[in-house]
Amino acid sequence: MTTPFSFSLGATDGQARTGAITTSRGTIRTPAFMPVGTAGTVKAVQMRDVKATGADIILGNTYHLMLRPTAERVARFGGLHKFSTWEGPILTDSGGFQVMSLSAMRKLTEEGVSFQSHIDGSKHMLTPERSIEIQCLLGADIQMQLDECPPFPISEEASLESLELSVRWAKRSKAAFEEIAGRHQALYGIVQGSVFPDQRKRSAEALQEIGFPGYSVGGLAVGEGREAMFGVLDVTTPLLPKDKPRYLMGVGKPLDLVGAVERSIDMFDCVLPTRSGRHGQAWTWDGPLNLKNAQFVDDETPLDPASDCPASRDYTKGYLNHLFRAGEYLGPMLLSWHNLDFYQRLMAAMREAIAEGRFDQFAEEFRARHRERKG
Amino acid sequence: MTTPFSFSLGATDGQARTGAITTSRGTIRTPAFMPVGTAGTVKAVQMRDVKATGADIILGNTYHLMLRPTAERVARFGGLHKFSTWEGPILTDSGGFQVMSLSAMRKLTEEGVSFQSHIDGSKHMLTPERSIEIQCLLGADIQMQLDECPPFPISEEASLESLELSVRWAKRSKAAFEEIAGRHQALYGIVQGSVFPDQRKRSAEALQEIGFPGYSVGGLAVGEGREAMFGVLDVTTPLLPKDKPRYLMGVGKPLDLVGAVERSIDMFDCVLPTRSGRHGQAWTWDGPLNLKNAQFVDDETPLDPASDCPASRDYTKGYLNHLFRAGEYLGPMLLSWHNLDFYQRLMAAMREAIAEGRFDQFAEEFRARHRERKG
Ligand SMILES: [Zn+2]
Ligand SMILES: [Zn+2]
Repeated sequence: MTTPFSFSLGATDGQARTGAITTSRGTIRTPAFMPVGTAGTVKAVQMRDVKATGADIILGNTYHLMLRPTAERVARFGGLHKFSTWEGPILTDSGGFQVMSLSAMRKLTEEGVSFQSHIDGSKHMLTPERSIEIQCLLGADIQMQLDECPPFPISEEASLESLELSVRWAKRSKAAFEEIAGRHQALYGIVQGSVFPDQRKRSAEALQEIGFPGYSVGGLAVGEGREAMFGVLDVTTPLLPKDKPRYLMGVGKPLDLVGAVERSIDMFDCVLPTRSGRHGQAWTWDGPLNLKNAQFVDDETPLDPASDCPASRDYTKGYLNHLFRAGEYLGPMLLSWHNLDFYQRLMAAMREAIAEGRFDQFAEEFRARHRERKG
Repeated sequence: MTTPFSFSLGATDGQARTGAITTSRGTIRTPAFMPVGTAGTVKAVQMRDVKATGADIILGNTYHLMLRPTAERVARFGGLHKFSTWEGPILTDSGGFQVMSLSAMRKLTEEGVSFQSHIDGSKHMLTPERSIEIQCLLGADIQMQLDECPPFPISEEASLESLELSVRWAKRSKAAFEEIAGRHQALYGIVQGSVFPDQRKRSAEALQEIGFPGYSVGGLAVGEGREAMFGVLDVTTPLLPKDKPRYLMGVGKPLDLVGAVERSIDMFDCVLPTRSGRHGQAWTWDGPLNLKNAQFVDDETPLDPASDCPASRDYTKGYLNHLFRAGEYLGPMLLSWHNLDFYQRLMAAMREAIAEGRFDQFAEEFRARHRERKG
């Protein structure tokens, strides 16, 4: 547990870049996609298979885990890695975003946010300090400051007020982190400011004054649309230090990932590959396919014969169609696995293209081929 | 596909016996437990993991597969082995039992049984000839004659009438099988006769007159209770030829398997390990455990540290408890897998005890340890 957290830049191609994050639990090749393991499991996929797709790191959700089985219980089990059997690095969010979207009776104050559990109605208080305490109990390698996640759209005035609160919470998060976390762990600050360029600037500068080993871009993928998101990235990433990893939270679709890598993002997470997989949607180079559709009932081809992933290579679309029609567990299991594998192959292809100085060409070809509305 | 079906007896110990069934797709070590793959998938478990538990053969359900995706479609996909990716032997039932328990508007005649699908209400007719045709389209290595599965309890008169119909259907099944199946495939006759010893005798004799390479004992595990079931086996298995495999259909709990092996049964199938697994129940040497129970919430021990099966060895009971409480797919996935593994280890232990001439001792120790009402 003594390898300190560090980031080293690799190749750059335009603004796109490769890199490596070193942690005590292994190296994360960037740009990286992190499968989401909300409640200590990447839904419907064995950790063995998650790892075999090439995932270097997974994400855990502080909100879910603090309520069930509770952070203290996970700590008694030896931490989230041991509890879940995932031995690689784990990133946790602060819990703030899910408090805002899932819990009841929320009340936000300077101190933090009080809320009731969506599971059993129990009352909780999440402060910057408590969030760090929970993330340390979970044993997260990369942790997030507590921030306020404002809705979209939001007025310029309300956004600025929220941003300033998040900056104050960033300071408190860092102080708490320095008190209880180890050198092998890292805490990221989160840039807010909605779609207002001067507010993104204000947030990025204030966070760098505090100083973090990594920076997240928050408050996106909340309904603003792809072009607005890219617009925010265009003004935000140039404000961040080149030698620290940049994490775009909760994003996204394959075309989002390509466009964000193009704008120098290094890390991503999204529930989409597993959520889509549970609902019969496969992500492929050509775009999404709805395997429940009748067109696949007699289709004898696999999702990707060129893949090393059994879920992509060894099962016909007709069989997958049958599994979803019959309501069999194996349908979500195989399709979640396939989607995770596709996402990792997309990331690997982007890293390779950057390293070989042909990312523009890769992105252009990908966009020409990948049709979001096909399936 | 040219290895002919055959059975060779190995060791015997009392009435218990080991053996080997040779098929063109591999050898089945007996006594054997066959995981149930109702609709072309062993529910919630990857075929790779089913195989790793030591299962030599799985079962497919004719009724489910004929309705969805249909036998003709499975045949176009190259048969059930290729469709499902299970490369070992497959046994199919005749469809009769499920028609009786699942379908609507059943009408039984000498010709066969007409019914409506429980899925879409479509009308179908299952005759001895059509059942064999379907099982051949699926490509089953071991097939079952169509029989009538009478309810329990049943009057002696009604049982005899049903038995005689099943004998006539056995003849027609064999004739159809000889016409279209290959030498690498086998058709079993099914002994009926409810709890009436003279009827079991009548059925066993009539079937042997027709002649089959294997015999099933049907009409049990339908509510008669364990002692009555064992009583029927006590009078039935001595009536069957020693050099043919004996298959007790739809059985059962671990104590059923031990008692039936003691009574010279060679083959079993049951949905119990996967069904229990989906509902949070783990089968262990000590008996069943309900992992949803609060007693396991802080339990840091795995289900079986001595097992090679990751599901049994690598996850704590506390983690499994968490998965079921959180409604995560991984709970049913891991517990179904563990249960299949436990069943295979039980079969392997029985085969070993028989080979070493200590089956009585094994059975006694197992019964002393295994508490059905514990968990
Ligand atoms: Zn997302
Ligand atoms: Zn059963």
